[in-house]
Order: sequence, then C-alpha cells, then structure tokens
Amino acid sequence: MSSLSATHPPKGLEGIVATTSRICYIDGDRGILAYRGIDIHELADHSTFEEVCYLLWFGKLPSRSELQDLRSRLAKERTLDPAILDFLRKAPKNALPMDVLRTAVSALSFYDADEKANDHDANVRKAVRLTSQMAMIVAAYDRIRKGQQVVEPNPSLSHAANFLLMLTGEKPSPTAERAFDIALILHADHELNASTFAARVTAATLSDMHSASTSAIGALKGPLHGGANEAAFRILETIAKAGADPVDHVRGMLAQKKKIPGFGHRVYHTEDPRATHLRQMSRELGASSGQEQWFEMSRRIEQLLNTEKKLNANVDFYSASTYHVLGIDLDLFTPIFAVSRISGWAAHVIEQLDDNRLIRPRADYIGPAYPQKYVPIDRR
Amino acid sequence: MSSLSATHPPKGLEGIVATTSRICYIDGDRGILAYRGIDIHELADHSTFEEVCYLLWFGKLPSRSELQDLRSRLAKERTLDPAILDFLRKAPKNALPMDVLRTAVSALSFYDADEKANDHDANVRKAVRLTSQMAMIVAAYDRIRKGQQVVEPNPSLSHAANFLLMLTGEKPSPTAERAFDIALILHADHELNASTFAARVTAATLSDMHSASTSAIGALKGPLHGGANEAAFRILETIAKAGADPVDHVRGMLAQKKKIPGFGHRVYHTEDPRATHLRQMSRELGASSGQEQWFEMSRRIEQLLNTEKKLNANVDFYSASTYHVLGIDLDLFTPIFAVSRISGWAAHVIEQLDDNRLIRPRADYIGPAYPQKYVPIDRR
Repeated sequence: MSSLSATHPPKGLEGIVATTSRICYIDGDRGILAYRGIDIHELADHSTFEEVCYLLWFGKLPSRSELQDLRSRLAKERTLDPAILDFLRKAPKNALPMDVLRTAVSALSFYDADEKANDHDANVRKAVRLTSQMAMIVAAYDRIRKGQQVVEPNPSLSHAANFLLMLTGEKPSPTAERAFDIALILHADHELNASTFAARVTAATLSDMHSASTSAIGALKGPLHGGANEAAFRILETIAKAGADPVDHVRGMLAQKKKIPGFGHRVYHTEDPRATHLRQMSRELGASSGQEQWFEMSRRIEQLLNTEKKLNANVDFYSASTYHVLGIDLDLFTPIFAVSRISGWAAHVIEQLDDNRLIRPRADYIGPAYPQKYVPIDRR
Repeated sequence: MSSLSATHPPKGLEGIVATTSRICYIDGDRGILAYRGIDIHELADHSTFEEVCYLLWFGKLPSRSELQDLRSRLAKERTLDPAILDFLRKAPKNALPMDVLRTAVSALSFYDADEKANDHDANVRKAVRLTSQMAMIVAAYDRIRKGQQVVEPNPSLSHAANFLLMLTGEKPSPTAERAFDIALILHADHELNASTFAARVTAATLSDMHSASTSAIGALKGPLHGGANEAAFRILETIAKAGADPVDHVRGMLAQKKKIPGFGHRVYHTEDPRATHLRQMSRELGASSGQEQWFEMSRRIEQLLNTEKKLNANVDFYSASTYHVLGIDLDLFTPIFAVSRISGWAAHVIEQLDDNRLIRPRADYIGPAYPQKYVPIDRR
C-alpha cells in the first residue's frame, strides 16, 4: 500500500529533472556534450583546463587577463597546510587513494580561511583552492606511499603539467601535458551525474563546499561511477597477464552476466562524445610509447560490445588505457577523475546555493502496514 | 529551451518518490511517523535505542537474546584505532565538531576490517561499528578540545549512558539516561531526509558505507537540516543574553523576513510527532533541573508561530532546550543528531545496496543555447 499520491518515477530517478542548470548541456540521443553551450569537441581541441574552470565557474570564456588571473590564483593556492601533509604521511600505506582523498578534502575545511563563509564569492575562492589542493593531495599521497619525496609545486606550470610534475618528479613532455590537459577538460563536468548530484543534495541543506566535495568524492568512488575506469583497466590487465584473447575473455564475462565496466551510459544512447577523444588519445599515446597493445585490446573489446550488445564505450573505457600509458597507477585513475571533476562539482554547488531549495524527495513505503503493534520483549 | 521531455517536478524534488522503502513510514497529514510500521510514540514510550537499531537493521523487534547479542556487539565495538584518537588530538581546537566528525568517519575506513567488502553482512557489521565509533568520536573530541582526558568506554552501559559517561566523565542519572535514550530513538530515522538521501545517492554508485555516512554527515551539517537545532538554541541564547521578550524578538525576526529555525517541515502539515515528545522532555528536564526558562521561552515562541504563522515546531526546536538542560554544548547538538541518525543511514544504505540502481536524475538546461562558438582568446 502506497501512502503517497506523488509521481512514481522509474528507479534511480531516471529521466527525472531534479533542477534547472546553466552549466552543462547533454543531448543523449545526438551524443552532444557542451559546457555553457560550447561543444566539448571544440573545448578539447582548443581550450585548456584552466580556461574550462573559468567557463564553468564564471559562465563565459575568459579574456586573456582574466585567464592569467585565474592561472595565478590557482598557482598561488598550490599549498597544503603542514597538518594535511602530516595526515598523508600517517595514513596507512595501503589505504585506498579515494579514501585518503575523501578524508583529506574533509580535513581541508579546518584550515580554510573561508570555512565559515558560504556566500558566492567565498565559494569561488574555495573552488580555486580545492582544485589546486586536490591535485596536490593525489600526487603527494602517491609519492608518500611509495616512500618518495613530495615534489614541490611549480607555479610557472599549467595545472596539468604541475600535477604530472608532482606525481612523477619530472616535468612532463609537451605531448603528455597536452594529453592530460585534454583528459582534465573531458572529465570536468557532466551535468547531474551521481557525484555532482550528491554534492548538490549536500549543499542544498546550506552545508558548505567542503562537505559537498567530500560527498562527491565518496560517490565518485563507486564502480558504477568514477570507479569504472579502474575496473575497466583491471580487465585489460587480467587479459594481458593470462595472455588471453580479449574477445574470448569478454564473451566469457558476458556469459556469466557480468557487466563490462566502461560501457553503456544512463544518458547517452549513442557514442559518448568524450570516448571519441579518449579513443584517439589512447591510440596516439600507445603508438608513440610503443605500448599499442592496450589500445588494440580495448578496440577489439569495443567492437565486440558494439556489434553484439549494442553497447557504446563511455568516458571510462579509453581513459583507462590512456592513463596507463601515461604511467599512472591503476588506483589513481578515479582520484584523477576527481582532480578534474572538482571544477564541475564546485560550479554546481555555487549554482545550487545561488538559488537554493532543500533537495528532499519521498520514499514510497512498502514495509509492514502501519500500525504494527509494539510487542513487549517477553512476548516476542 | 528545455532539451528534456522528462517530467518537471517542483524544485528540490518535493513530493517525488525517489525509491520504495520498507524502513520508515510517514504520514505528513496525520502527523504519523513509524519505524518498520511501529508508531514512534510506542517506541519512545517503551523501547531503547539499541532495540530501535535492531528494528531498523533487521526489520523486526529482537527477541531477548537477539537484543542482548546486539548490545554486546555494540559494546565490543566501543574502540577507536589509536590513529583516530591521534587525529582528534591534532585537529585544531576550534574546528567545528561536525567537520571533525565528518573527517574522522571518513578516516575510519582505513582501519575497518571490512573496508573492501560491500555485501549485506559486511554492511551490518559496519553499521554496528559506526554506531559505536561515532558516539565515541563526538564525546572524545569534545573532551580533547576542552583539555580534558578522554573517558574510557564502559561496556556494561547502554549506548545512551555510555555516551553521556564519555562526554561528561560521570555516569548519568537514570532520568538523564532515559531522556537521552528517547532523543536517540526519536532521531534514528526519517525516511528520505536530505542526509539519508545523500547517503543513498552515494551508496548507489556501489561506493561503501563509510563514503555514504561521510556524505550524510556533510548534508546533516546544513542549517536547513540537522544544523537547525543549533540555530534554534542560538536564538534562545540571544534572547536570554539580551533579557529580551521572546515574542518581541521573534516578531522582529519575522518582520525582517528571517526564517525561524526549528519550525515548519517539508513533509509534515501538522505537528511533527517527535516534537510532542521533545516538548514534554524539555518541560520535565527544565523543571527537575530548575532551568524552566528555556522551556518557557520556547513555548511562547511556539505559540506565536502556531497562531500567527500556522507553523509547527519540528524535531529540532525542543531538542535544542532539551540538550541544553542535559548540559550539552551548543555545537554538539548536530553531531548528537548524527550519533543517532547513523542507525537510519546504515539501514538505508543496506536497503539501497540490496536492490541497487544508480541514482542519476537529469538537469533541465537553461544556459546559453547550444552551440555557442568557441571564440579564440585574441577575439574575446
């Protein structure tokens, strides 16, 4: 018996509009993704992650001086309170990087100059700060757990190059920097994906940016969301280790009714436009580094799923082989997704708070009919 | 221009059913709240928090031995890894307790024996563990920030009594223990409130219980949700300090179009049944402790808002004066809400994962029409 006369949408709020938004346009039938109306293909071809941050946070492309100003602000915020570095040093060396990132971002609130402010301008400052700090946390924890020195940030580098420097200890090649910058652009926002929605639900109680970002990281961790890029590469790795045929292996998974991570998407009914770029990057980086096997394996799996299951690769499938060829550890794939997506989370939190209403749906109660008797313990 | 043919519900998903659930029944028109079909008034009169935990997690009232077993498990989990205590000691003494709690719960994942398991039984174990640990974290941090010794847990005490012991250093009176136990019962669950919804959105990516609980704490912090009990008491305090008339003061706030925290509720159109109990507790505890003024002030404010604004007190309004008379610091009111609500969050996460689907709604795009040109930087 339902107690609610409310609308009863499909499970998982599929197709339900939870809010209006001016940030991200998706046409799932035509395979279109655009930030503030600008097509993702144009941004991937011509823009930078810093410019995309500006676009997401301020609603327009920056002038040269506006862009320079944001780059300076991001570079200036490349600093972590010593207590955060101490926390990273004391975290168990086998802790999951996503758990460490979630905890460290939550702890950043203690040291944020704007912790008690929740107005628009304070939240833009927090967006800048969190974008710089999250990249540093991911890179620093990876080095610490490997027993390496934390690398000092370089304020003259782009966000992408500085992250790769802090991760690897070496200034990246222009090819690697650009590839990583494009990956950051492609992952920056995607409308009301689950982590962004978790961030907006959190912020809509008038809670703060750190709480919202912490929620988002927790949601991104799941294998039905950001965790899929890591899960996708684990399959490639299993196939490579076993020397198996990728098509046979994936056919075997399908026969066991297993989901293949990196395929299918709630919103796209055609190719995810981000997959188009990542496929090309995976191919090019594989060829230039002499590691073609990951791309080739991926391509065969994709063709199988296209043909036999009518499933398209999503953003996670080719980011897996791309990140691997860039020399990034498997369990950093999802943290790196977060390093980019903080730009979108912050934009959505700011938009939510600019015109807020508590996000509080209902559940349809299907449990024991009301009223059940409270039976005293002696008579149970 | 809307790109979606989807249903367009009111803002904040008001009245939209996001899931079915067997946990909590609410009839907002008749002022009914029930856990697993059992009326909250019966539970508040006859039950204990431990029994309510069993009811929420296992779907039925426990037998005597089942209840004893859960009490033992909860008592056994009254332990924190030394690294968590170390973190609490190093957190800045002026950090917000909700920020500390959110961070510490996130960090608990590093030390959880089931961190990598996400099955039903593992999540029940995590529910037990988190319920014991969160109470300890709130009490321990409060003592640490005041320069006091952390109090050892006492496994022979109830959850309520052990928390008050660890907070104050003294075994509570039976009256205080029972009052606090009832407060825990009343706050244990409330269907898809914003923090529980944040927990379910997070868990639905197949992320884990610690991520979901961390999201929930972040959402609870906001003054439109759990933060309202703290905000409500701040008003009483302001009135008391100024020696003002409560009715005049609140009239002044209304004239400035300020919201009065602790009044009105998205779901109830009549009295929140939890307010009925908390009003009585506030009155009785006030009388027995010679601190009637908080109840009397609250009552006059309530009558004003009932009469002139047709607004009813919700769970947060009388919990404020109740907690104050119990000797609890203002900024612990919301953490204490979390100490109870973890029971409901965990029940919802377990239910979500037992029959999961990703929670991923859509946004209706109202930004710059697609496609906007990417104008090169020299021509902006």
